Amino acid sequence: MTTEQSTRLAAMFNPASVALIGASDRSAWSRTILHNLVNGGYAGDVHLVSRRGEPAHGRPTVTSVGELPSPPDLAYLLMRSEAVFPALQEAARAGVRNFVIPGAGFGEAGPPGTALEHEVASYCRAHGLTVLGPNNLGFVNLADSVYGYALEVGDLPRGGISIISQSGALAWKLMGYVPSRGAGLDHVITVGNEAVLDAADCLEHLLSVPSTTVICLYLHAIRNPGKFARMCRRAAVEGKPVVVFKVGSGAQSARAAVAHTGGLVGNDRAIEAVLRHNGAIRTASVEEMITTAIVLEGYGELPGTRAAVLSGAGSACEMLSDRADRLGMTLPELTAETRDKLVTAGLPAFATAQNPLDVTAAVTIDHPDFLDDFARIMLEDPGVDLLIIQGLGLGNPFDPRRRENAQSLRDLQSSSAKPVLVFADLTGDAVEDWQALRAEFGTPPVVESIDRGLLALHRSGWWSRTRKQLLTEPDPAPAGSPGTAGQLGTGGWSEWSARDYLAGQGVPMVPARLARSSAEAAVAAGQLGFPVVMKICSPDILHKSDAGGVVLDVRTAAEAGSVFDELTTRAGVAEPAAAVEGVLISPLRSGGVELIAGVTRDPDWGLMLAIGLGGVWVEVLEDVALRQLPVTPQQVESMLGELRGAPLLRGARGIPPADIPVLARAIHRLTIAALDLGEAVQAVEVNPLLVRGTQVEALDALIVRGDSA
Amino acid sequence: MTTEQSTRLAAMFNPASVALIGASDRSAWSRTILHNLVNGGYAGDVHLVSRRGEPAHGRPTVTSVGELPSPPDLAYLLMRSEAVFPALQEAARAGVRNFVIPGAGFGEAGPPGTALEHEVASYCRAHGLTVLGPNNLGFVNLADSVYGYALEVGDLPRGGISIISQSGALAWKLMGYVPSRGAGLDHVITVGNEAVLDAADCLEHLLSVPSTTVICLYLHAIRNPGKFARMCRRAAVEGKPVVVFKVGSGAQSARAAVAHTGGLVGNDRAIEAVLRHNGAIRTASVEEMITTAIVLEGYGELPGTRAAVLSGAGSACEMLSDRADRLGMTLPELTAETRDKLVTAGLPAFATAQNPLDVTAAVTIDHPDFLDDFARIMLEDPGVDLLIIQGLGLGNPFDPRRRENAQSLRDLQSSSAKPVLVFADLTGDAVEDWQALRAEFGTPPVVESIDRGLLALHRSGWWSRTRKQLLTEPDPAPAGSPGTAGQLGTGGWSEWSARDYLAGQGVPMVPARLARSSAEAAVAAGQLGFPVVMKICSPDILHKSDAGGVVLDVRTAAEAGSVFDELTTRAGVAEPAAAVEGVLISPLRSGGVELIAGVTRDPDWGLMLAIGLGGVWVEVLEDVALRQLPVTPQQVESMLGELRGAPLLRGARGIPPADIPVLARAIHRLTIAALDLGEAVQAVEVNPLLVRGTQVEALDALIVRGDSA
Repeated sequence: MTTEQSTRLAAMFNPASVALIGASDRSAWSRTILHNLVNGGYAGDVHLVSRRGEPAHGRPTVTSVGELPSPPDLAYLLMRSEAVFPALQEAARAGVRNFVIPGAGFGEAGPPGTALEHEVASYCRAHGLTVLGPNNLGFVNLADSVYGYALEVGDLPRGGISIISQSGALAWKLMGYVPSRGAGLDHVITVGNEAVLDAADCLEHLLSVPSTTVICLYLHAIRNPGKFARMCRRAAVEGKPVVVFKVGSGAQSARAAVAHTGGLVGNDRAIEAVLRHNGAIRTASVEEMITTAIVLEGYGELPGTRAAVLSGAGSACEMLSDRADRLGMTLPELTAETRDKLVTAGLPAFATAQNPLDVTAAVTIDHPDFLDDFARIMLEDPGVDLLIIQGLGLGNPFDPRRRENAQSLRDLQSSSAKPVLVFADLTGDAVEDWQALRAEFGTPPVVESIDRGLLALHRSGWWSRTRKQLLTEPDPAPAGSPGTAGQLGTGGWSEWSARDYLAGQGVPMVPARLARSSAEAAVAAGQLGFPVVMKICSPDILHKSDAGGVVLDVRTAAEAGSVFDELTTRAGVAEPAAAVEGVLISPLRSGGVELIAGVTRDPDWGLMLAIGLGGVWVEVLEDVALRQLPVTPQQVESMLGELRGAPLLRGARGIPPADIPVLARAIHRLTIAALDLGEAVQAVEVNPLLVRGTQVEALDALIVRGDSA
Repeated sequence: MTTEQSTRLAAMFNPASVALIGASDRSAWSRTILHNLVNGGYAGDVHLVSRRGEPAHGRPTVTSVGELPSPPDLAYLLMRSEAVFPALQEAARAGVRNFVIPGAGFGEAGPPGTALEHEVASYCRAHGLTVLGPNNLGFVNLADSVYGYALEVGDLPRGGISIISQSGALAWKLMGYVPSRGAGLDHVITVGNEAVLDAADCLEHLLSVPSTTVICLYLHAIRNPGKFARMCRRAAVEGKPVVVFKVGSGAQSARAAVAHTGGLVGNDRAIEAVLRHNGAIRTASVEEMITTAIVLEGYGELPGTRAAVLSGAGSACEMLSDRADRLGMTLPELTAETRDKLVTAGLPAFATAQNPLDVTAAVTIDHPDFLDDFARIMLEDPGVDLLIIQGLGLGNPFDPRRRENAQSLRDLQSSSAKPVLVFADLTGDAVEDWQALRAEFGTPPVVESIDRGLLALHRSGWWSRTRKQLLTEPDPAPAGSPGTAGQLGTGGWSEWSARDYLAGQGVPMVPARLARSSAEAAVAAGQLGFPVVMKICSPDILHKSDAGGVVLDVRTAAEAGSVFDELTTRAGVAEPAAAVEGVLISPLRSGGVELIAGVTRDPDWGLMLAIGLGGVWVEVLEDVALRQLPVTPQQVESMLGELRGAPLLRGARGIPPADIPVLARAIHRLTIAALDLGEAVQAVEVNPLLVRGTQVEALDALIVRGDSA
């Protein structure tokens, strides 16, 4: 963002004056926005503009924004869609630079609306105007008391959570929901159709707002993928967690697949991979998004997620263990010293000194003062990163000790260097009951429900680790810049050219010879050693098997000679126009594990690396790990670990365990080779990539470059 | 349950008089239980029994239950664990038959407690006494105003949901949670250690209580598996949904595996399969359990789950579609007629007549009276089973139209033959706000959050379908009764005997001959046609490959003869004591899809059928479908459909699609063969079971029977 843009957005979200153009007693919008601004304590001037000059909402109006002494920092355009563009032009001529257009009837409403939206957007870009919307509900900036929202909102508690939403209705609900969970808000921005300002722009703006500590996004489309990905990474590096709930994940967009892996890069999987790669958290529901934001706002970067659990109910311990198990989280065993200390501190004989620690109802009823001791002892255990206090008289309005517990928790938290989280057992009213105590005593926010709470903690831990990695990683080279191999040919390459290029880039290839006659084939096969594989070699025949261009298990020199003739004849029949370079001969390999590794260009996200296990794994199970390029060899290792079929690489079914670092380096070289091909590269794939212990060999290679793919 | 037992449980949960033995001013328990009984409006007599005869809680006491004019129907034993047994014996001699023992210090507290618990349990069984607990908190029976609970509870709203919980603490939380979600309770029973009465007994009792319409269970162990499974099935058949949240699912208990499939029948998977088989719903959290119970209490058996959705927010429509997609639920397309009617009824031009239907904010604000018309039109669509109304001014306390919406919903629901469900967008206070309106207008319960709501609807739909199937299914033959094959041999069988038996039971087996000499082998192989497979045949060598007892791809008669000698020699070396019947010869098969199908005896659940795809599918992915026997061929078809690798059976990777009914019949015959072997059968397995289109053949067979396994 340029300084000018940044100043403009600051003026938009914290304007010194606002005009409501189209204000009228008949407009619910002007009434509501005015009401919200006044009730929210807006300190600037609000001007009402009405073409007829009639008073509105008991205030005078002007007939044109040009009549105002100076142009307002921000104008809401509150007329029917047809009248928006003229009104915008008039206001722009009067010097207004920032607009909110709440009205529907634009891009979301079919072709005429889309045309109108494009017209407005082009005009605004040409004239350097900023627009939020159309088809949105404005924004609320609590930090500066600007409640510029088109549906009525009450008084909202301030906090560090900001929300960017493509849905105005959902943002409105969240203004009720987030405070009900005990958390406070900073900015709530609805972006609607994003004709000019998009979610990535707003994300960038919020990175410059100090009062925002966590940013939640509700999205159904990502309209500016490149900037969005960069902003996610910047947010992670700067320590502001980004938590995304993206809908539309069910529909896998079908994309043209040049290479095999291309078809595996569905839209949703690509988004998943890009968010992960750039340190943004993805959640599966709104509630998960908010719960995660609450944990991150309350506790920030976590030292780890090895949680000790202190509870007064066996059921809560069971549920927590169960859930942690499913999430793959470790609830560490306590040291012998810690266990001894717990017993000495008064743990009843029928309770077990373990993690999770069920102190039993007897303690919570008869010796509630012991709880503080137990908590401190568990926090001192060196294997413990944080403490979860679960269900100790929280979460039930009948419990008589709620107030004492709230006080003692506050003291515990303020004196402990490690995070102390409070989990309620269940969602709902019990949490609100506790929130009231929280407000009174200043205790930390309660995380509601074991289910969502532990998931939120898990995601927060992931974010904390990922942030550390991003901080230590070298700044990624800009993907897709013209590389050293930029002078090489466009279109599909023959396998011979492709393997030659990849071998030069350090990708381990199976030995091969290119035979140009049946005599050469017989000699080459003999030199390589039988049995061999023979494949037709042509830049015009990328799908060799489909064209009958592959013969496996050739066992003698004589057979090799005749197979040469057979392959070239078949190629002439199947693809008469194809330029045939010859027949490629390699030793036949067997055993080991077959992988498929490919880099393909995604229209939104650029070059993506896909790794899968061969055969049923990719075809039936769609078991693929994806990342946006560039990647490090360590990230490739993580990708291999993510595969459901990963046990095969670790040596299942009598196959020797694969040397993962060697394998990861080979795949990493493939990504470098792809990046070096520059902006025009469409696909670089090895399929199969065979692994037997430390031996890694690509048995085939495919490169497609430029538009001719 | 005998009539006597049934009468006893009725007296326990609805006693005409109650004694609190061990009552004292120093006992929080006697104080709380008395307080709850009085506050809850208990109509019977409450007697306090105190060894010292001192007054307690401002009431007189007697020193022994024998002093009472007649024995009370129910006695609470409120002393330390050491004093419980003598007190119980004394009360029993005085004629008391039913007891609640809240105290801890029994089976949950290590060996001495376990011994005490066994002593109490044996005495009670011998004397026909009924005990709830120990280590529980009693029960609440709202239908008869018996609040016999050991932690303080307030006034609870009545409804159809009953809860059986192995955790008293959780049950207590749920007494706050369920009402906060707008639902009412019938019975809440905590079973503790289940020394005498267990969850299955209480489930059986609740089936006889008319005011209970849905039963939730929180369990960490199933102590009476056979009865539990039977009661689940009976509940489904009788139309009372059972919703289970079972913890401990992460830990897969390792069990001795006779056959390959035996190891796949982990404890948790078996429970999953048994619940499913018997029509009980399993959920992954407490909140899911309660949300599901609320949907089932409110709407009972559903006609289907093809849901039409009516919402005022695009975001809610997006989230619902997304979630439905992930769950595999269909949101049906509307007919052209329905779409026309919606437009005629006033749908705005910029809204699209589709399902989900976003009527847009314009309608909800300007024409809220249209909503009722839209709802009725969608309900009339023949492809629609039910209507979900989502986010229409519900769920936000700022919304001014909440009351009108509540009224119009009530009218809609009472006049529609199809269910009309109301979903709130988010969990939390908004739901409580709506619950207040609900109480005022008598509207249906609100299902909180899209996430949990749709999952609950999905599960309710499953229950409704499963119930129909159970009603039409023949009553299952009692598994494990001595079958017609009961006279056959015990221990491991040779493959020849096993295949002979299975073939006789209609399981399709690959052709085979048993050769007793190398000459016979050469002849038999020639008759079967080369290539052949040769396997050592002995009841003492069940794992033939491990003993070097299998040779594949034998191509000539001479080779067959020498392989015979080789195999018998090897067997003599590997297992000198083994009785060798000969060498089994079969044609070598290739191509097609390999399955593994086996029946094994689970210690808790009896005979279980496991089906998986061969190779990596079972070994690495643990992709197995499980069911308790008996099964129908239709159920076997469902099992095949559940496998992640099911696409392979439908013809992926160039393999012809498998004839599923033929395959299912073959596996069904296997289960009949296993059942016919009677109570001693341990394992009956075919591995692999090869399928190529309509051709189904078991290539190997294993039977183990009796203790010698």
